[in-house]
Amino acid sequence: MAGPAPISPLAPKSYPDMPAIEGVRFATGAAGIRYKDRTDVLLVLMSEGTQAAGVFTKSKCPSAPVDWCRAKLKKGRARALVVNSGNANAFTGKRGVESVRFAAKLAAQATGARENEVFLASTGVIGEPLDASKFDGVLEKLVAGAAPERWLDAARAIMTTDTFPKVATAKAEIGGVEVTIGGIAKGAGMIAPDMATMLSFVFTDAAIDAPILQKLLSKSVEGSFNAITIDSDTSTSDTLMLFATGASAQRGAPRISSKGHHQLADFKRALDSVLLDLAQQVVRDGEGARKFVEVRVEGAASDKAAKRIALSIANSPLVKTAIAGEDANWGRIVMAVGKAGEKAKRDRLSIYFGDVRVAHKGLRDPDYDEAKTSEVMKRDKIDIRVDLKIGKGRATVWTCDLTKEYVAINGDYRS
Amino acid sequence: MAGPAPISPLAPKSYPDMPAIEGVRFATGAAGIRYKDRTDVLLVLMSEGTQAAGVFTKSKCPSAPVDWCRAKLKKGRARALVVNSGNANAFTGKRGVESVRFAAKLAAQATGARENEVFLASTGVIGEPLDASKFDGVLEKLVAGAAPERWLDAARAIMTTDTFPKVATAKAEIGGVEVTIGGIAKGAGMIAPDMATMLSFVFTDAAIDAPILQKLLSKSVEGSFNAITIDSDTSTSDTLMLFATGASAQRGAPRISSKGHHQLADFKRALDSVLLDLAQQVVRDGEGARKFVEVRVEGAASDKAAKRIALSIANSPLVKTAIAGEDANWGRIVMAVGKAGEKAKRDRLSIYFGDVRVAHKGLRDPDYDEAKTSEVMKRDKIDIRVDLKIGKGRATVWTCDLTKEYVAINGDYRS
Repeated sequence: MAGPAPISPLAPKSYPDMPAIEGVRFATGAAGIRYKDRTDVLLVLMSEGTQAAGVFTKSKCPSAPVDWCRAKLKKGRARALVVNSGNANAFTGKRGVESVRFAAKLAAQATGARENEVFLASTGVIGEPLDASKFDGVLEKLVAGAAPERWLDAARAIMTTDTFPKVATAKAEIGGVEVTIGGIAKGAGMIAPDMATMLSFVFTDAAIDAPILQKLLSKSVEGSFNAITIDSDTSTSDTLMLFATGASAQRGAPRISSKGHHQLADFKRALDSVLLDLAQQVVRDGEGARKFVEVRVEGAASDKAAKRIALSIANSPLVKTAIAGEDANWGRIVMAVGKAGEKAKRDRLSIYFGDVRVAHKGLRDPDYDEAKTSEVMKRDKIDIRVDLKIGKGRATVWTCDLTKEYVAINGDYRS
Repeated sequence: MAGPAPISPLAPKSYPDMPAIEGVRFATGAAGIRYKDRTDVLLVLMSEGTQAAGVFTKSKCPSAPVDWCRAKLKKGRARALVVNSGNANAFTGKRGVESVRFAAKLAAQATGARENEVFLASTGVIGEPLDASKFDGVLEKLVAGAAPERWLDAARAIMTTDTFPKVATAKAEIGGVEVTIGGIAKGAGMIAPDMATMLSFVFTDAAIDAPILQKLLSKSVEGSFNAITIDSDTSTSDTLMLFATGASAQRGAPRISSKGHHQLADFKRALDSVLLDLAQQVVRDGEGARKFVEVRVEGAASDKAAKRIALSIANSPLVKTAIAGEDANWGRIVMAVGKAGEKAKRDRLSIYFGDVRVAHKGLRDPDYDEAKTSEVMKRDKIDIRVDLKIGKGRATVWTCDLTKEYVAINGDYRS
């Protein structure tokens, strides 16, 4: 790469004030994973008893760290999280498994955690063995310097081709006591021969047992990280984890096990908002993105059908290039609805760009206004709405446009 | 558009000699569907008793002509085929259905065919009603001038953004008598606000009853037109039809009804070759294509699994941009294998570019040769082979690379 890429035009204009989470401390450092003197390790320390939940790539060829996290999550306890950039430790065979084990061992020694309570994530080049001995000595120093407020440093340490660090936070009440949620994410940028990976780590001082935490996370991810797409491709390393230290219990917050589930309404709302915020930031930093696109499908046979149709629209290269060209090409929306394979009636479809209804009852809207539509298509954010008028299913997904810059970023290595 | 696009660098270097098919005559003309004095209608006349088979878009929002053809195919008889470019008659509601009926009526009057024996296909702008009265008077003239050898005229008349006409032919023996197959196709180019459509029409003088013909076509399409992809998007108008005039019976060829099925081995081979030739020409004329890509998957759990994995590779924007960049990025192949959702074992995978094995047993091949691989990636045709080593399933699909020109063709309307 010829130096850092310019910050995405869709980046948020400011960062939120990120509050400390009781029981969580961050440290970042340079372990020389791929380049010398580049920040490439994030260590997160969590207090004893921290509960853990996770959602991972659906890839049938997951990376070694993903296999590790899935296995260790069965216990649901976390004390340390180590994330490195520079090397994804993916497609590295048995050596990859060994280096994950060695990294966990080093992290346990440095932090005093049990190996079962160490979680690992890696992003960067694939197919190259990760030399975990590079963590040796580095992690001890990080433990000594860990501090609660270092959110932006943490978010920056896990960036690869992201053009801005991604953080989000929200407050919630559980049993009348305020708890805090904060999280970081990195997005789906990739440069040869690196592979994109979506990583996100979210922390709270709420006292919620691991099985409940897992349910909350699995549900919340459907409307956030599982409702975004850059280019329909899926990394072998995608990892989203949620950690609950339980420190708010000392301030009187109830511990939520299977019984107190009904007290979680406000926490759910806050968790949804943090995950959605982070997920949308990932889209806003999509490679070559110039438009942030919201696709809303209504009136489908079911919510599941609506989501499949919405993703068919959001993943269509023809829809995405049309948006890049600021062209309200509703014919391509019809095409994408049709190819989704879900029930649709051609002659009931309505399609909107922003507030402008461009197609109605299977025909171009008689009141279609070219100038008004053109205005809508010039915006940074494009809202597409499709009403199928056959049922009550609905879903919203987010994506970005497909530009020549996307092709350049991913294809211009030899030219 | 600023004039015709240059011919694809992947176009065949010459056209085959296209022989006449007994019982088939072509005529082309200008009906002023969208532009004045532009050839936009193809009429094909077929002799009494011609048997018909068809395969159509899987879109849940098919165009009005597709609905018409599906309905009329139940009888399995054809006398006339009318194809227009300039207007796809898609997403045109009840008016679209009416104009299909009117066009069929006009064609029946002009040719003496029954309306049930008239087949129709349209390609071009969508969402605009097709004024079928424009066919009035034109079709009569075409009937008068129809001739058997006008293959290239026929192929040109149905082009939209294709950069070259697509024809293919093969001979076969049935019961010791030579029969001929010949076909035309148009491909998946699209310009705003036009929509891509794949149309192909194949003719033979073989005497094969419609139900058998349909079986042959449905099977042959799996390895040809259903094994190609430009950008994963599916038109609402895709149409492939096969017509058998039966004229070879006069030269002693047997009529194949349900009984003579075993005599069709050579015909099947010839049909496969014509369909594959046409399908590959469609890929070679893919928008912005500079590389013709063959993806072969072996050792999968089943043939179906192999095809799904092959299509996942062929549709991946990251794989396609890497090929455009002449980058042997096998990590993206692993990614695409993983996201296909079919059984795969990371540590058994082998991946080849051309003759070069780049990955073996889940690791970069120890003998990997950068210079040799680089040589392979510079070719016009790129062969990707993946061996999953878990079963006997295999499939081959064809695609093209994803270039900035693709984005320009589909997105540059307003810039």
